[in-house]
Amino acid sequence: MSNEDGVYSVPGKEFDRDTRYITTRITADGSEGFPVEAGRYRLIAARACPWANRSIIVRRLLGLEDAISIGLPGPTHDKDSWTFDLDPGGVDPVLGIPRLKDAFLARDPEYARGITVPAIVDTTTGAVVTNDFAQMTLDLSTEWREHHRPGAPDLYPEALREEMDAVMRRVYTEVNNGVYRCGFAGSQETYDSAYDRLWTALDWLEERLAGQRYLVGDTITEADVRLFTTLVRFDAVYHGHFKCNRSKLTEMPVLWAYARDLFQTPGFGDTVDFDQIKAHYYVVHRDINPSGIVPQGPDLAGWFSDHGRESLGGRPFGDGTPPA
Amino acid sequence: MSNEDGVYSVPGKEFDRDTRYITTRITADGSEGFPVEAGRYRLIAARACPWANRSIIVRRLLGLEDAISIGLPGPTHDKDSWTFDLDPGGVDPVLGIPRLKDAFLARDPEYARGITVPAIVDTTTGAVVTNDFAQMTLDLSTEWREHHRPGAPDLYPEALREEMDAVMRRVYTEVNNGVYRCGFAGSQETYDSAYDRLWTALDWLEERLAGQRYLVGDTITEADVRLFTTLVRFDAVYHGHFKCNRSKLTEMPVLWAYARDLFQTPGFGDTVDFDQIKAHYYVVHRDINPSGIVPQGPDLAGWFSDHGRESLGGRPFGDGTPPA
Repeated sequence: MSNEDGVYSVPGKEFDRDTRYITTRITADGSEGFPVEAGRYRLIAARACPWANRSIIVRRLLGLEDAISIGLPGPTHDKDSWTFDLDPGGVDPVLGIPRLKDAFLARDPEYARGITVPAIVDTTTGAVVTNDFAQMTLDLSTEWREHHRPGAPDLYPEALREEMDAVMRRVYTEVNNGVYRCGFAGSQETYDSAYDRLWTALDWLEERLAGQRYLVGDTITEADVRLFTTLVRFDAVYHGHFKCNRSKLTEMPVLWAYARDLFQTPGFGDTVDFDQIKAHYYVVHRDINPSGIVPQGPDLAGWFSDHGRESLGGRPFGDGTPPA
Repeated sequence: MSNEDGVYSVPGKEFDRDTRYITTRITADGSEGFPVEAGRYRLIAARACPWANRSIIVRRLLGLEDAISIGLPGPTHDKDSWTFDLDPGGVDPVLGIPRLKDAFLARDPEYARGITVPAIVDTTTGAVVTNDFAQMTLDLSTEWREHHRPGAPDLYPEALREEMDAVMRRVYTEVNNGVYRCGFAGSQETYDSAYDRLWTALDWLEERLAGQRYLVGDTITEADVRLFTTLVRFDAVYHGHFKCNRSKLTEMPVLWAYARDLFQTPGFGDTVDFDQIKAHYYVVHRDINPSGIVPQGPDLAGWFSDHGRESLGGRPFGDGTPPA
């Protein structure tokens, strides 16, 4: 039942994400052998995937488009995971490979773990440098500073890191991964427990965000990026496909307004492709949707409606500016 | 993939309900060999099933509880369809059988079609008289009049039959059966077409019911009963499990208020068991929910909220009274 990316259910068991990533970092000082260098690296990041969506948003908020190119696998997998099926000839135009797996094998011919996005590939060798999604976006903020656009926001401000790390940890275990824990539960009991954990966390967020525009501090940070990519998929996928159905996001007034506020902020909604998101989950996860049929709903018109969150104050980009 | 009741999907095909029922009628004049007679017949009607739910509601609205007893199979099936697993010893206390199938075989030892509820069984022989759900409830209204309670409403008034028949036909093909056409579509194409048909019909109903309290005329009729049993299952099952997800019922203001109005009317909501409903669909239909895991949602508190439909006028029970 593996989808070749560490995401599957085991009968009777709680969902357990395979988090053994390639953790090599690209740093300003090159201490791990991969120095920051404009034009050298290629980000492979499917629009469908929430973890990859983070990296697309952060790259765009920071204005790293010219420094780091991007390759976009299509929403569905073949048996070897992500492919460049949307590109002319089915081959990534820079790496010249049809499957992301080829770049993992270039790194390690014996590689047998998840073929996941986002991954950063060194174009000089065609080998994956890292697929450690959590560290990757923080490094874009901190290690790639010299290539940020003028007016780029500080998404990981020093003064807020302690609070951010705590909030992001809870959001990761309870929400980002929590929806998967519901969807890939291997028994009624593990599902029930996963459902309770998820909604406890969403209630906490609903309350936390009632009086403040952003998750931590008064500007957009990495913490908001990480919550957003799950919320934007909630009604389209997690509500039905993963049985996260106490309510829709549209029925949680604070979180729904918060998500719309971000969606309407340059760098967020413009990275979201609902068709690819739905196609990915419903077609790839045949173990929970055997027919592979993709629902037509939900109606998405609400994403563009007024959110009213400006009244809470906050400075979306702090001393910076929105991306173009 | 058959669930032994004629409900399954065929790859590549549109859903096609097996409607070959046993159509023998129980009539006042006994013209088909089965005269109306208090105490003789037993209605077998699982709370989970929308078609059976109709008969439970009508029996109660008309006060036929003393004239026609009821047997209630549990929400899930074994391979031979409905069983009396909720009864002491797993046997219906009147018919003395563990499986509804036994009553169908008593009628016809070669019986090979759907073992469906509702079914009416002649207790003198233990054989099914009819499982023709559509005719069954109309006959409770028209043929069983002498056993109706004082103050029973007329659910199929002569003067409205032409209009009712047309409305009920559209509601049946587009909504009652329309949700199944979505859920058991055998291809993306047949699903897409089924989805469009369903929402066209729901939009029509949303508009029709905006200015009138009930579907036909100004009192509750069989037409309302038939629409209600689908609407009450909509968010709990059809929205996610059958991919009827343009919106939830709670997001269609008119239909949601209409459904709550009926739910809060004696004879409707008191026949609904959401736990059995969810268990039935999610456990029985393994072809679309292989894990058999039953979602905890949705939150049902809204069903008891004010609906405001009294302002449209209407006389729920006409010249009659509500059931006790």
